[in-house]
This record gives sequence, C-alpha cells and structure tokens, in this order.
Amino acid sequence: MKIAFEKYNGMVPAIVQDHGTGEVLMLGFMNEEALAETQRTGQAVFFSRARNKLWRQGASRGHLLKVVEVRVDCDSDTLLLRVQAIGTGVCHEGYRSCFFRRLENDGTTTVTEDRAFDPSEIYGASSQS
Amino acid sequence: MKIAFEKYNGMVPAIVQDHGTGEVLMLGFMNEEALAETQRTGQAVFFSRARNKLWRQGASRGHLLKVVEVRVDCDSDTLLLRVQAIGTGVCHEGYRSCFFRRLENDGTTTVTEDRAFDPSEIYGASSQS
Repeated sequence: MKIAFEKYNGMVPAIVQDHGTGEVLMLGFMNEEALAETQRTGQAVFFSRARNKLWRQGASRGHLLKVVEVRVDCDSDTLLLRVQAIGTGVCHEGYRSCFFRRLENDGTTTVTEDRAFDPSEIYGASSQS
Repeated sequence: MKIAFEKYNGMVPAIVQDHGTGEVLMLGFMNEEALAETQRTGQAVFFSRARNKLWRQGASRGHLLKVVEVRVDCDSDTLLLRVQAIGTGVCHEGYRSCFFRRLENDGTTTVTEDRAFDPSEIYGASSQS
C-alpha cells in the first residue's frame, strides 16, 4: 500500500493516541523517512515543518512514544499512531496531552487538565519541544 | 485566542474523536468559516481541499457528528473535536472509523474491524463521502 505523501508537500498528518486510555496526545507530520524511521525503531519520529528535519518526540527529556500500532485512513493520507507514552507528558507546556484547552464558542479557551510537569525545569525559560 | 489558520493555506487539521468510546473516527480540515459554522450549528463542518467548499460529514446519508467539545492544541494549529457520532459509521468505505486498517511494517495493511454498513447501498457503485 502507498501512503499519499504527495498531497501535502511530502508529508501526512499523524495523530498520536494513547493506546491504553484512548486520549489523543498530539498531532505531528511524517514524511516518508519519518515513517520508515518510526517503523524501524518502534518509536514515533516526525518531520518538523519549522526546522525541516526529523525529530523524536520528547527525546530531549527522556520521554518517548512507543508505537503499538500504526493505522492508516481510507484515503491513505492520514496516519493514527497508537502508542504507549513513556514519561510524564507529551506537551512542551507541561501537560500529558497537547489538547489541554477547550475552545469555547466565544473564542476564549479553558484549561481542562492539570500540569503533569513543570516545563521551566526541563526546557528553561523559553520552552520548546 | 487565535487559531493559526495561516500555517497551512488557511486551514488546520481537525481530529474527530468519539466522546463516548475515545475512538478516533477521522481527520478533516477546517478553515475559519468551517470552524465558525461548526460552532454555530453544533455539527462538525469541514473544508474540502479537493472540492474547495464546506462539507458536513455524512450529510448525504443522515449521518452527523454532534460536537460535544472542541479542543485546541498548544500551538493553536490543530483542533480536536470530541463528538457524538449519530448513524452507522463515519467512513465512506462503510466502517465506523476511517482508520480501519493497520499498516504493517512490511507495507501491507490489515483490516481491523467489521463493516458497519454497505457503502454500495448508500453511495452506489462509486463510493464517495
């Protein structure tokens, strides 16, 4: 089967879901190399659009996403990684999931979960994943 | 709060998750108008890149996605819709979820769930969502 990388500049969106809890943790992008590296290592590897290179989620702080299975959608243009998330949290803001805010109808947001770790202790003042 | 629509041609990816079961059902794209329409109607509305217009999931067959809540990620460039899926299945191939295939390491795929409906009865011979 062929993944439709050509639809969006050689990349496809890859949803990351906790295999145990079902929680959606983040969305990254994968190019063909990132997918191959994910399959080779069993750890989620993405392609950074901003930095134009591969990155391994949480590699800078001992965090990692062990891939349990990769699903592909009907159009073969989106991946779903079901993972075991090792470590305190996926999000560089200190939360388990990057989707820690609810968007209200008036355009404001509400934080819906507690921080899992203090990002300033790990990343310093300017937090980056 | 401002959604970063400018990062990808005026759109952001929107993951759709069943609020009750946690199952990831599909991924669509939303432009600003699709998000506003989703918030106004309480039903998931997407922007079709192929057809260059708004579409409501499953509108052609009485299926709909009632939005329970919208989450936004840390970078404000991805949405997560937690929904109640009304109807038999989201996928135009006849499955509850578009992610009904597992991608194996050898590049083949394995269908992991049973069909929820017969798409040929709804869409005719050339199935389209």
